[in-house]
Order: sequence, then structure tokens, then C-alpha cells
Amino acid sequence: MTAARENHREAVAGRSDVEDTAELLAYYEELETLKAGALWTVANKIEPWEPVSRYSPVLWPYDKMRSHVLRAIDLVTPEKAGRRVIYLNNPGAGDRAACVGGIYSGLQVMKAGETASAHAHSTSAMRFIMEGRGAYTIVDGHKMTLGANDLVLTPNGTWHEHGIDPEGTTCIWQDCLDIPLVNTLEANFYAVHPDMHQKVGYAVDDTKYTFGAPGLQPQVSWDKAYSPLYKYEWGPTYEALVKYSKVTDGSPYDGILMNYVNPRNNGPVMLTLGASMQLLRAGEKTKAHRHTGNVIYQVAKGSGYSIIGGQRFDWKEKDIFCVPSWAFHEHANGSSSDDACLFAFNDFPVMNALGLYREQAFGDNDGHQKVEA
Amino acid sequence: MTAARENHREAVAGRSDVEDTAELLAYYEELETLKAGALWTVANKIEPWEPVSRYSPVLWPYDKMRSHVLRAIDLVTPEKAGRRVIYLNNPGAGDRAACVGGIYSGLQVMKAGETASAHAHSTSAMRFIMEGRGAYTIVDGHKMTLGANDLVLTPNGTWHEHGIDPEGTTCIWQDCLDIPLVNTLEANFYAVHPDMHQKVGYAVDDTKYTFGAPGLQPQVSWDKAYSPLYKYEWGPTYEALVKYSKVTDGSPYDGILMNYVNPRNNGPVMLTLGASMQLLRAGEKTKAHRHTGNVIYQVAKGSGYSIIGGQRFDWKEKDIFCVPSWAFHEHANGSSSDDACLFAFNDFPVMNALGLYREQAFGDNDGHQKVEA
Amino acid sequence: MTAARENHREAVAGRSDVEDTAELLAYYEELETLKAGALWTVANKIEPWEPVSRYSPVLWPYDKMRSHVLRAIDLVTPEKAGRRVIYLNNPGAGDRAACVGGIYSGLQVMKAGETASAHAHSTSAMRFIMEGRGAYTIVDGHKMTLGANDLVLTPNGTWHEHGIDPEGTTCIWQDCLDIPLVNTLEANFYAVHPDMHQKVGYAVDDTKYTFGAPGLQPQVSWDKAYSPLYKYEWGPTYEALVKYSKVTDGSPYDGILMNYVNPRNNGPVMLTLGASMQLLRAGEKTKAHRHTGNVIYQVAKGSGYSIIGGQRFDWKEKDIFCVPSWAFHEHANGSSSDDACLFAFNDFPVMNALGLYREQAFGDNDGHQKVEA
Amino acid sequence: MTAARENHREAVAGRSDVEDTAELLAYYEELETLKAGALWTVANKIEPWEPVSRYSPVLWPYDKMRSHVLRAIDLVTPEKAGRRVIYLNNPGAGDRAACVGGIYSGLQVMKAGETASAHAHSTSAMRFIMEGRGAYTIVDGHKMTLGANDLVLTPNGTWHEHGIDPEGTTCIWQDCLDIPLVNTLEANFYAVHPDMHQKVGYAVDDTKYTFGAPGLQPQVSWDKAYSPLYKYEWGPTYEALVKYSKVTDGSPYDGILMNYVNPRNNGPVMLTLGASMQLLRAGEKTKAHRHTGNVIYQVAKGSGYSIIGGQRFDWKEKDIFCVPSWAFHEHANGSSSDDACLFAFNDFPVMNALGLYREQAFGDNDGHQKVEA
Repeated sequence: MTAARENHREAVAGRSDVEDTAELLAYYEELETLKAGALWTVANKIEPWEPVSRYSPVLWPYDKMRSHVLRAIDLVTPEKAGRRVIYLNNPGAGDRAACVGGIYSGLQVMKAGETASAHAHSTSAMRFIMEGRGAYTIVDGHKMTLGANDLVLTPNGTWHEHGIDPEGTTCIWQDCLDIPLVNTLEANFYAVHPDMHQKVGYAVDDTKYTFGAPGLQPQVSWDKAYSPLYKYEWGPTYEALVKYSKVTDGSPYDGILMNYVNPRNNGPVMLTLGASMQLLRAGEKTKAHRHTGNVIYQVAKGSGYSIIGGQRFDWKEKDIFCVPSWAFHEHANGSSSDDACLFAFNDFPVMNALGLYREQAFGDNDGHQKVEA
Repeated sequence: MTAARENHREAVAGRSDVEDTAELLAYYEELETLKAGALWTVANKIEPWEPVSRYSPVLWPYDKMRSHVLRAIDLVTPEKAGRRVIYLNNPGAGDRAACVGGIYSGLQVMKAGETASAHAHSTSAMRFIMEGRGAYTIVDGHKMTLGANDLVLTPNGTWHEHGIDPEGTTCIWQDCLDIPLVNTLEANFYAVHPDMHQKVGYAVDDTKYTFGAPGLQPQVSWDKAYSPLYKYEWGPTYEALVKYSKVTDGSPYDGILMNYVNPRNNGPVMLTLGASMQLLRAGEKTKAHRHTGNVIYQVAKGSGYSIIGGQRFDWKEKDIFCVPSWAFHEHANGSSSDDACLFAFNDFPVMNALGLYREQAFGDNDGHQKVEA
Repeated sequence: MTAARENHREAVAGRSDVEDTAELLAYYEELETLKAGALWTVANKIEPWEPVSRYSPVLWPYDKMRSHVLRAIDLVTPEKAGRRVIYLNNPGAGDRAACVGGIYSGLQVMKAGETASAHAHSTSAMRFIMEGRGAYTIVDGHKMTLGANDLVLTPNGTWHEHGIDPEGTTCIWQDCLDIPLVNTLEANFYAVHPDMHQKVGYAVDDTKYTFGAPGLQPQVSWDKAYSPLYKYEWGPTYEALVKYSKVTDGSPYDGILMNYVNPRNNGPVMLTLGASMQLLRAGEKTKAHRHTGNVIYQVAKGSGYSIIGGQRFDWKEKDIFCVPSWAFHEHANGSSSDDACLFAFNDFPVMNALGLYREQAFGDNDGHQKVEA
Repeated sequence: MTAARENHREAVAGRSDVEDTAELLAYYEELETLKAGALWTVANKIEPWEPVSRYSPVLWPYDKMRSHVLRAIDLVTPEKAGRRVIYLNNPGAGDRAACVGGIYSGLQVMKAGETASAHAHSTSAMRFIMEGRGAYTIVDGHKMTLGANDLVLTPNGTWHEHGIDPEGTTCIWQDCLDIPLVNTLEANFYAVHPDMHQKVGYAVDDTKYTFGAPGLQPQVSWDKAYSPLYKYEWGPTYEALVKYSKVTDGSPYDGILMNYVNPRNNGPVMLTLGASMQLLRAGEKTKAHRHTGNVIYQVAKGSGYSIIGGQRFDWKEKDIFCVPSWAFHEHANGSSSDDACLFAFNDFPVMNALGLYREQAFGDNDGHQKVEA
């Protein structure tokens, strides 16, 4: 009966505007018995004028997170925990374990010499390394060594596992997966590797050495939907941004931004998750815009602040924050002498694949939001 | 604190298996204050071995639905209701107004001479005509006349409106939209046409006359992601299935099945919703299989039954039923002399675009499920 | 020495304009001994301002051709001749056996009960049936029955063979292949079928029954670059043009024109050859334009005339004529009461694939060429 | 009458094998008057069992070519010559000015401070720098500085021009264009820039700085069929090959080979011409294979020899040689301590786009040809 009592009337031509009457309420109850309802009672709710996200902008300061993450080392083993991860839980997520929108994110920690068992799942994953030496990931037999600010992919359906060399140090990285999305789509499968670990079948870091220069490619056949380049290192990424900054004005909303792409087709690295790195020049303050799709930022370099939905979030290196769908946002580099870099995970590939991407500039006040007191 | 008390331990290597302790429970509470949680407390829940749908298989018998739908004529006007629709509400839908998965569906009714106002939205819609004469739909200035078992598209972003010719009769059709999906993705926009109605800018039924034969195409430019053929009529559809049945063995799971496609690229008619029509030959009983993705069937011709998740559903013309993601299903034509046809809406385009489509045959018992008592 | 004496000077800035001197002529001779030459002696020749085709417009009247074609029946057998074909030889073709540009064309004749042996080649072929009953073609095991004005494909690399049913009559059809092109590209391979004939492995005319309606497709996998629909029948083709003529103004240069397309991707039926059918409405006179690419027309219905490169060619049913690259052309239906149809083979797919298609309207005289006396 | 007397009889079932008779010879003469011929008189010629190229393998030694190229400086000015180029003329080319197949190639020389006027053409061009400092090319306003072994594109339809900085030295480079192909296709257009020179509209070398790292891309829109990366420098190219050689066994026919690709789609840099750089490891001797398509090699580093169609060609740095369609070829690095690099232009994009690429290993003698005495 609850549903029948909902009423979202709007006195606007072309919208539902039906008053509850005794006869109608009785009719609604009958419909319920048929597993049915009257559209006009919910139409204005399920067809909103524009998206209003259930998720909030949140900033997770790394200094606070780090101590809790490190504490987990003493509390659980990778064997018992599966993976030793503290996940970021948006207040709007309910029981979906979502950082924002359909994206899950967490901070994983491993000690030198630890290994986690190999598994595969329908969800797509990326990892962005935060600290430590000696981390590696193995994806379908390809082993990648990982340092700070490197990005590594573990795509949908691949066998993958992580570990730290015995000679390394404790490592922390940020995981990003499309778990809430794939669960909503009821398409999530999980498998543990039959041998718990896979063999390394290629030269270490082979994908990096195979894609050694822009516009140069060996004749390797590839029929997967994700990027055959599994690792994107920080060094050439930052260098590319600096170079590009010399020949472009950049974007008014994002400064100097480059997407991590699948070098086979210039598309996103995976079908459901995208990633980008952007450089804010010394003193740069971008203008505000908004778009469908969700973004999780990690500060790769420098410090500054972002205004999201009228709220100011100050950030410094390794802090993480999120921008929900259709929330206005703008970024400012806090330094007048050094550049700052924001790494970002996003779900733009989903928006684009389904024809749902939409973007809008903030028109007033020369493009800058008023900050809420 | 509720989340911290969740515990989905599995005593399986590679899965989370952490016992609650006082120390851990205190740790979980601390994490909550940081808008964070321990992955191992929810990992086995959010990474299931395989999908278990929250939606149930349901059959909506047309004879029962029809009388309630017709009654709505007296209860509300299209002006007040926006659209006069009774929607199909799956018990698992909660407040999402979903027929199954991310798909909304409803039965709309209009009287001769009625018109509904024009609007546009980010959701994609299809309509399958059930009864009546004189229905029409206008999409971005293209007017389509509609008869029983015709399919018409009103894609994402198009201005569209429906009406019944004054010379016609009361018409009922089934609507199908991706409303729950687009709302979950927080990407839904809605607009009412500034003039409430659009002008017809082309010859009536021009898209049908433009695509007049398979493999023949005028040089019309087209840059949209959806099919430029907005209407698919029942006559040639049924004829195509009958012809095809003479040269193919068909599918063990679906008999003679054809997808409605975008003639520009052979892909789905829209980016988020697909449609198909299948013919079950006289006496045909298909084998069971399951797949990710959701399907809503409408019986276009004949009678028979389907077994879905071990449950038998008997159907006759115009009945509607749904198959949730990963549920085994098989179909049987109840007649040994006549063919039967099942029309279907589905969200396979989403599964395919995001790399999430998976399929499995029912291996036991010669491919047939045991029916629950 | 001959080459050195060539001199194509143009007194235009940016073009070669070098006078022969004794020193230069001696230099040119030295270069010849090194298998080299001076670009400026040939630059203006090999880089013309625009194409000037070596091919002429030609009309082959069917009444004259037919008697010679039929006479071949008595002169050679298919066994001895391979195929019993009279080919159309453009005066500009030299020894290339070209109808126009890179396209070969000929008229093939077979008697009731005759069969030709199966073969495969790197060239792509199409056949347009002109007269007779009982013709058939087998392509990779798919047998197609053929009537007047039907188009059948025998793509690059397929085993194919032709024959006439014993119950049939003498049949004549027009062959069209990319032989001159593939020979120029030095990529032509030929093979005789090991058994001289192939088995029919599918229901007769299965491809036609598989693609039974526009926008409806069975889930048949297909990884070839050519159309899986091997036959396009005259009946639905003409009907599609008539229908389309009711909802379009058509093209000022071509009237009502439809391309035969690969229903999988809306592209050309084969990678190197395209085909179209166009309808000129009663009394229609098109305007002149020109384009890169070559066209061979066959009159499928009616009579009229075309003006090609300022020359008038009167045509009636089954006459064949060609339009060379970059020649202005316009068509006129000679009847004020009946429509006329022109079938055409072309090499536009080559021009498009290589980025070389260019088109230009004839701007003067309201779009009509002056006819040479 | 000449054509009628051709007779290419083969006593093979499925091939033409018709004896000339007086009656037939008379018939052939009649056909000629109709601009027609009997296919069986030429069928075996125009449908060969496999390609036999009209072009020969040729090696152009740089030491001999260089002096003649430099001499041209004194003989002609760029203004008078258009471009000061010595072209490579294959003995099989007739009057087509072809290096091999449909590919033209030449050596261009310019002095410090010289500039050539801007033009555009339908042909696609690439330049591979051989020696000198200060060369540059401007393509549609993008200026690229060029050093030895750099590759620069001037695609179909772009305004482009070359010059040498006043501070530079005399420069020589190899031009490669698809002139013979585009002329055969009768699709060649040429235009001189209205101002004789274009303005530089972007930061110098902007395309190189825009594509600064593999797998990283700014959001720049691009709708052209050719690569937006106009320059490929030798430094990162060689480095990429060396890196790749550490993680791959390479190809038995080509050693370590990478294609220059369009970073937007991983396809060829232009629609009609491809390019590659391959590294032969110290002491490496590849096996022989053959393929359709033509290749022009330039030795970028080291020395060695190639066996082409059974003929041995010894090469050292900057030598140029060609491999015609379907000729067997194998390469040997002459050094047991240093690697060697072969740059290559090819027309594989044409072969692939038209479905005509075919490849075959040399099966005998462990994959090595016998060298002709």
C-alpha cells in the first residue's frame, strides 16, 4: 500500500498532476495485487528533470586514512581477509559499499614478502600505487613491477594477483572497481584460481616494453576489449603532461588533462572504467562545470582545493575525494610556483557506451561557484 | 554500526573468512567515522560467486490486466496523468518501479482522438502495440502509423508523442524503457516540448519506406547511435521468421529468433535496449539456458508455457512475463499444429557494451529443468 | 633517352618549368644509368591538376551485342572456354581488357543443362541477370536461383560456379569483376576447384530467406568483409525504389537511388565493387555532376539518354554504357509516363577506402552540359 | 586484330583452351568492331595462377646516388623545378615513374635557407630524412623540425611545404608517394597554395608533444583518416625497438619489427601507405617469405644483405632497395656484434583495405632461398 500513497504531483503541463481520491486509492490497491501500479503516481519521481545524486562529495584525508590502513596489517592476514583493504564508503551508498556512483574504491596494504591469492571476476579493476617499494601485480601471466603513482589494470575476466617482493617495503595502493555497477546489473561472477597462484609466462614488464613509443606498434594480434598495455608508469605520464602543457592552452575546466587509453583504439582502458591524469599549472584555477558520470580523484602531486557542489575541499598529496554525477566542480592549484597533479578514476566509459554522457558549464559568476559558508 | 556487524565468512581458500573479535568490532566502528569500512566484512557479499537476482519471474495475464487498464480511461486523462499507464512492478523492485532488472514496462491506453504531449528524456523507449486501430507515434517529426504487434522506437533524446486518430479505436500497447537503469546511473533528464506538440516534418511512415528491402539503402547520412528505422511492422517480421524457418534449424534455446536491428550497423536498435521476435514451431520445446541480462516477453501469437527458474508459467496471446538475469529458462509451444511467437524486450545491449554478457546451457536432464511442485 | 626528352613545362608558380639544356640532357642520361630520373622532367605529367581519364564513354547496344553473344554458343563450349563470355573492351584499355577504369565486364551465355566448373580467385565478381530462365550460381555451397535483373555476388576467395537447370532456357548475364585493378595491384590468384564442382551445403536460396526483412537479423556470426546476402532480387529492389520515391525528393544527379549494401555494416557488398539501382521518374532529367570512380550502367527498365562528357548516348532496356572517372554525366528518362531504372556497377568502395572519392556539380547552364554536335 | 591473335591456351581443366580457327578469328574481328572481345582469348592472361610482378628488385647504392643528387643543387632551383628531386625508376615501370608497384620514391635535396612552395595533392606522401641539419616540414600549419632518420607525413589533401633553416646545412631525404597508384585510379588532383606559403598556426612540433607517451591521450577531436601524429622521431623509435627486443622473440621473417601507426586507431599512418622500422639483431638471418604488396627499404643503421627473388643485394647505411609483390625475400645483418635497422615504406594499407593481402613462407631449404649465381 505504501507505493500507492506516494504522490509526486507537479502543476506543470506535460507532467503528472493527479489528485488522490478514494476511488483512485482503491484502484491503486487493486493494482498492487496484480504486481502493478499507476505510472502517474510515480512518474515525476522516476523521470526527474535532471539527476540528483544520492552520493555526496567526500574527501578522505590520507593522513587519517593511512594510520588505520597500516593498523589492518596487525589485525588480519591476506589469507584470512582475501585482500587487506579499507574501503571508502559514501554516506549515500546505503549497503552498496560504493565510493561514488557505481564505483567501489579502497586502500589496500601489503607487507614485504606477502602475496595474495589469484582470482578472476566480472568486475574491472585498476590500482594506483601510493607508497612503498617492491609491489607487483600479475595479470594473465604478465608480471608488472609497480612504484608510486603507477597505474595497473586487472581487467574483467583476467586472472590476477598482487604481492610485495621480500626485498620491498610495506606498500599501499588505491583499488578502484565497478563492483556496485556490476552488482546492480546482476552480472558479477567470481572465481578463485585453481592453483591459488599463476605462473609468470612472459618477460617481466613486457607490456611496457611492447608499447615503447607513441605511434609505434608491433604486429601483435589482440581481440580483447581492454587495453593490452596493463601498466602506465608515473615517469612518462608526468613528462607527457609537462610536454603537452607547452603546446596547448588546456581545458578551462581541467587544465592539462590526458586520458589513459587503450593504445589499440584510443578508447578507454577498460569497458566500464576510465582514468586520467591532469596537471594544474602553478596558480591555475579552473572554471566549474558538471557532467553525468562519477569521478574519484587522488592527489598525485602538490596541494590545492576543489569546490564541489558549492563546498570547498582542501587537498594535499595522496588525499582522495569524489565528485558525484551532475555536481558542479572546479579545481585550484594552491601553489603559485609548482604544478599540481590530480589522478582520477571515472565511469565515463559507461556513460559514453550507453549514450548518457552530458556536460554543462557553470554559467554564472565568471564560471566560479559560490562557496557555502 | 550495522555494517560492521555484517559478516559473510566463507571457509574457502581465497575468500574472506575473518571472525569478529572485540578488537575488530571496535576497529570497524572507528572506520565508520572515517566514512570507510573493512572490505573483508562485505567482500563475499559484494563479490558473489555468481549473480542471484533480486527479481522474480512473473507472468502478467493480459485478461486480468486489460480490464484494469481500460478502467484507467475513466479515472484519469492523459493531460492530468502525463501518460495513462499501468506499470508492471516486480516484487523484487522495491521502489524502483522495475519490471525486471533495469527495465521498466507498462501498459498504456488511449482513446480515439486523444493525444499526449510531446517530451524528451535520456531514457530510451520502445512500444509494442497490443490492440486497437489508429495509433500513431511522432519521433522528431517522423509520424508512424501503428497496428497490432508493430514495434516503434522513441530513442534517448528524441522529441516524441503518441496519439490515436479520431477515426480509430481505443488502443493499448506495452511500453518498455530503461528508467531504472538510467536512474541508477544518475543520468536521467526530462524535458517537455515547448509547444506541447511537434510538427510532422516528413511523409508519414517515411522511415519504413526508406528501408524498403534488406540490403538496399539510400545514401542518407546518419550520425545517431540508434536505428534510423523507427518502426518495425508485424507483417514483414512474421513473414521473415517463417521464411527463415525454412532454411535453418534454429537455436536449441530459442527456436527461430531474429533480433530487431539498426540497419546501419546490424547492432541493437538503441544503445540500452534490444528487441527480438522468436517463432516456436508447432510442438517445439526448447532446451534451458541462462544468461546475464533481463528479458520481458510478450506473447505475440499462440499459446504455450515457459519454465523459468524451475517454475512453470502458462501463457497465451498478449500475456507478458519476465526472465531475470541468470535464471534458467525454456519455452514450449502448446500447439502441435500452429506456430507461436514471443516478442521480447531485453537489456542485452548494456551487457554487451560493458563486456558483461555470459551464457550457460542447462546441462542436466537432456537440457530440461525439473518443475517445482 | 626517351624519358629524358620528355618535358612537361608549365609557366605556373609552384610547377616545374625547367628548360632542357645540353648539360641537363647529359645529366638525365647519367641518371638513367642509375635507374633514376629527374622529377622535374615528369612532375607536371604525373601530378596533373585533375584526372583526365584514358577511358572513353561507350555505349554497347544490347541488340547488337546479343546476336554475337548467342553465336558464341555454337563456337565454343564452357569446358573449352572456361567461361563463354564476350567482354566489353574500352578503346582506352590497351591490353588491360577493361570496360572502364579498373573494372572488367562481359556478357556470359549458357544453355539449359550446361554447367561451368568451380573456381576461386582474388578478384571480386558480380553478375546481373539479363534474360533466360533457370540460371543458378553456387557460392561456397550456397545455391542461388536467378531471374532477370537479379544481382548475385561471387566474392574474392569464394568457390563459385554457374549453371542452367536442364528445364531452363538459354541465359545471358553481365559479369563485372575488378580484374584490371587486381592485376595492376599484382595481387591476383586463381584456383580451380579440386573436384571441378562443389556440393550444395545449404537450403537453396538460404541467404535470401535469412535476410527476410529490413532491420531483422538472426544471430549468425560472420567475419568476412563481404555481404553474407549473396543475392538481391529484382522484385523487392524495384518495389523498394517505388516506395522510397514516395517519401523523398531524391538526388538532383541520380533521381531515386539505392545502393546494394552489406546488411551487416551498411557498407558496400564487397571491398572493391559496389552496385546500385536508380529510378528515374517519368520525365525526369537529372543535373550533371562528376566524381572520381568508374561506373558501368545497364538499363534495367525503360529508355532514355545520358549525356557523358558532352556526348549524348541514347539507351533502351539491357543496353550497357560506362562513365569514366571525373567525366560529367546526367541522365534523362525518355518517357513522360513510365519510370526507367538504371542498374550500375562501380568502384566507389575503392575510392572511399583509399580516401580518393571526390565529387563536383556542373555549375553552368542550370546544371546541364552542352551536347557536342 | 592484334588482340584477337593473342592465345594463352592452357591444357588444364577449368582453364581456357580454345584453338584458333578461321571462323573464330573472323568472329574475333567482328567483336573488335563492337568494342568487344572473346574472354577465352585472354582469360588465362588476365587471371594468372599467381602474381608475376612487372617490377624487378633493385638496390640504389647511396654513395652513387648522393653525388648525383647533390649535383642537382647547381643544375636547378626549387622555384624552377617545383621540387629538386631525383626519382628512383624501376626498369619495369615503363612511363609510370614508379620505384616499385604503385609507389613513387625519390631523393630530395635542399640547401640551407631554401624553401619550396606549399601545395596539396590527392596523393599521400611520407619523407624519411637521410642527412643534414635544419630541415622542416609544415603540414596544415603544423611545423615539424626534422633530423636524420625521422619520418614525417604529408597526407592526402593537406597543404604542405618543406624548407631548411638558414642556420642549417644541405639536407637530403627520401620521398615516398602513391603517385602511380593514384594515377592508375585516375583520382589525382593538385593545387598550389594561393599564397605560395602557409602560416605556422601552432607551437613548433606540437603533434610530437601532444602524443607524449604510449597510452596517454588528450581529448582532441580528430575526424581525418590519417594519423594526427605527423612526425615520428628516430630516437624514441630506435629505443622502442631495443626495448621490445628484450621481451619478444620477434618474427622469423622480419626480426624485431614495429609499424608506425595512427595512434587514434592503431591503423596505418595514411590510407594508402604504411611504414615500419625493423631491427635485425647482431648476426640475425631471417627466413624467406613473400606477400602481396610492395616494399621500399632504406637502411637506417648498419650493414648486411637481403636475398630477393633468389638474388643477393648487399647493403649499407642509407642504401635503398625494393621488394616487388609476391617476391620471396630474406634479410641478414652482416655484423655479429651490432644491430642493423631497416626502415620501410609499403602499400600494405591498400592490400588490407581491399582484401588482397596474402602471405606465404618459403618452405624449402629451412626457409632460405638458393642464391642465383
